[in-house]
Amino acid sequence: MKESALILANGLFDSVFAKTTHGLLRGPSRYEILGVVDPDYAGEDAGHILDGRNRGIPFYSSVSEALAHQTPTHCIIGVATVGGVLPDSLRVDLLTAASAGLQLVNGLHQLLSDDDELVSLAKGGIIDLRKPRPTSELQFWSGEILLVPAPRIAVLGMDCAIGKRTTAMILREGLREQGVRSEVIYTGQTGWLQGLKYGFVFDATLNDFVSGELERAIVECYREERPEVILLEGQSALRNPAGPAGPELICSARAAGVILQHAPARLHFEGFEDLDCRIPSLSEELELIRLLGSEVWGISLFTHGLDDAQSLQVATELETQHEIPVVRPLEEGGERLVHIIRQRLPS
Amino acid sequence: MKESALILANGLFDSVFAKTTHGLLRGPSRYEILGVVDPDYAGEDAGHILDGRNRGIPFYSSVSEALAHQTPTHCIIGVATVGGVLPDSLRVDLLTAASAGLQLVNGLHQLLSDDDELVSLAKGGIIDLRKPRPTSELQFWSGEILLVPAPRIAVLGMDCAIGKRTTAMILREGLREQGVRSEVIYTGQTGWLQGLKYGFVFDATLNDFVSGELERAIVECYREERPEVILLEGQSALRNPAGPAGPELICSARAAGVILQHAPARLHFEGFEDLDCRIPSLSEELELIRLLGSEVWGISLFTHGLDDAQSLQVATELETQHEIPVVRPLEEGGERLVHIIRQRLPS
Repeated sequence: MKESALILANGLFDSVFAKTTHGLLRGPSRYEILGVVDPDYAGEDAGHILDGRNRGIPFYSSVSEALAHQTPTHCIIGVATVGGVLPDSLRVDLLTAASAGLQLVNGLHQLLSDDDELVSLAKGGIIDLRKPRPTSELQFWSGEILLVPAPRIAVLGMDCAIGKRTTAMILREGLREQGVRSEVIYTGQTGWLQGLKYGFVFDATLNDFVSGELERAIVECYREERPEVILLEGQSALRNPAGPAGPELICSARAAGVILQHAPARLHFEGFEDLDCRIPSLSEELELIRLLGSEVWGISLFTHGLDDAQSLQVATELETQHEIPVVRPLEEGGERLVHIIRQRLPS
Repeated sequence: MKESALILANGLFDSVFAKTTHGLLRGPSRYEILGVVDPDYAGEDAGHILDGRNRGIPFYSSVSEALAHQTPTHCIIGVATVGGVLPDSLRVDLLTAASAGLQLVNGLHQLLSDDDELVSLAKGGIIDLRKPRPTSELQFWSGEILLVPAPRIAVLGMDCAIGKRTTAMILREGLREQGVRSEVIYTGQTGWLQGLKYGFVFDATLNDFVSGELERAIVECYREERPEVILLEGQSALRNPAGPAGPELICSARAAGVILQHAPARLHFEGFEDLDCRIPSLSEELELIRLLGSEVWGISLFTHGLDDAQSLQVATELETQHEIPVVRPLEEGGERLVHIIRQRLPS
């Protein structure tokens, strides 16, 4: 029997901070999702609010209310916060869930296993997805990746919370539907929650071992699954001041190509709208990726803030300007993306 | 009284793996250095072997021999290893030093405090410079750096072990000699060993907090010292496959300018000579740094493998080719470097 879960999105469902919740609703998910806690939408269907497609997963106003209707085995924190700190409001819900015997699943940096009250209450146990692994368990980059023949394709983005993981999952499904064996290497806690088998939590890894852990995940994945394509979930952005990332996927994992997520309506790096932190230009990003040693095969739009006509127009303009295919995977599905990848693969 | 130390460089003195030892001999050093253990050079003067300048610091064949002549308070591991693992040969010397009551100072990832035998013997204690700090003590990037008016200058490099820290220290001294208040932010354990006050160990920090810890160090440094120039010690290289680094110094610390260390005679990334891991081109690196948001003000040569005439010729050629000043700080001293910086500073 598949384990089941309640997701906490307390008051943040309609924001990029709930991207973990969104990903689990969209699926796949390691757990069967029985409900989402967010008082703003109590009584509504979570899928409907997400993208207009009912999924039979209700919103509840609190954990108590949810437990009156459902019997989940797990309680997942479905929101990310800047710096990964646990908000007080969430902690109250966690105490209720812990008391009810649910296993708590936490993707924040702040570890629930450091919280004595939660630990003593949580008879069901705690999974801290971002608990740092000790140095002795981490692997340094060795160059073994150079022997993996399956091409790696990195899904990078111009910012955080811009659809990188979602696009990687759409691509995997699309490739598989066409009979191309493909795997996604997760680099964030949500990927693990979605049931991905190979990967590591990039931002909770000691810096010196990020490249080695990425290499290890890819090498293991190739050895066990023999995929024809390996998709790499990117993190952050190459020039995000709060934590630039991406060169590891190009220089250490040797990504042959890049699918670049871009949000045309977003001007500032997520979470830093009040500062002088504008997202730099797309043209520069393409050149930066080229200099790092890879190539953008396709641009994938995160269309939040644009209506359908607007996003279609932007896609057309960008395609003309950069001479690179521009897709809108959530609107169009993954077919064109898959086509872009297949055109580039060795036959 | 200044504490004193013996450095272990066992058999690696004449390699880039002993760059910590070299830095401490060149100075400054948090501890007075009484001797260097390396049987290859027993009886010789360490400074003489380093750069032809006697410093009255002898080589010893073993810790036992050293302790027959000296009474240090500390024993420093003066070598780095790929992946930061402790070689067995070093462990024998550490056991002797621990038994003699010396405090052990370790910059390797492998923690001496995890070694039960060493812990029980080391009555003098253990300092593990790369012991990861827990998440709760780490700071996320906030943008506070934008309020620091002192310009940051990043000393980056085309590879590891190429003179970044040394050049930063030479620059600091040169600027201070001319009355310019300047500080170096350390990002590696050797910087701490050299007595630097502000910084953090970049590669032993959880990835998500690297930018925030860098910001914290700079903000603290500015608040307490009011420097006119803040030099940032770079780590690794922008495209080093074993662990690319550098965008943090440009995008998160907002380095106004870059001094770029280059080793003309080195073709492959250090430690990966047997793999297809050639150091990419200098022209690309200059463009990469520009796209990341900074500018190379000067190129600084690590001339290992070239004689004086050769390195001078290379410097002249590179200067003509790139239209950027090229200096050889170990040969010339820091004057020209200081001049380059001063020309660019707001008056």
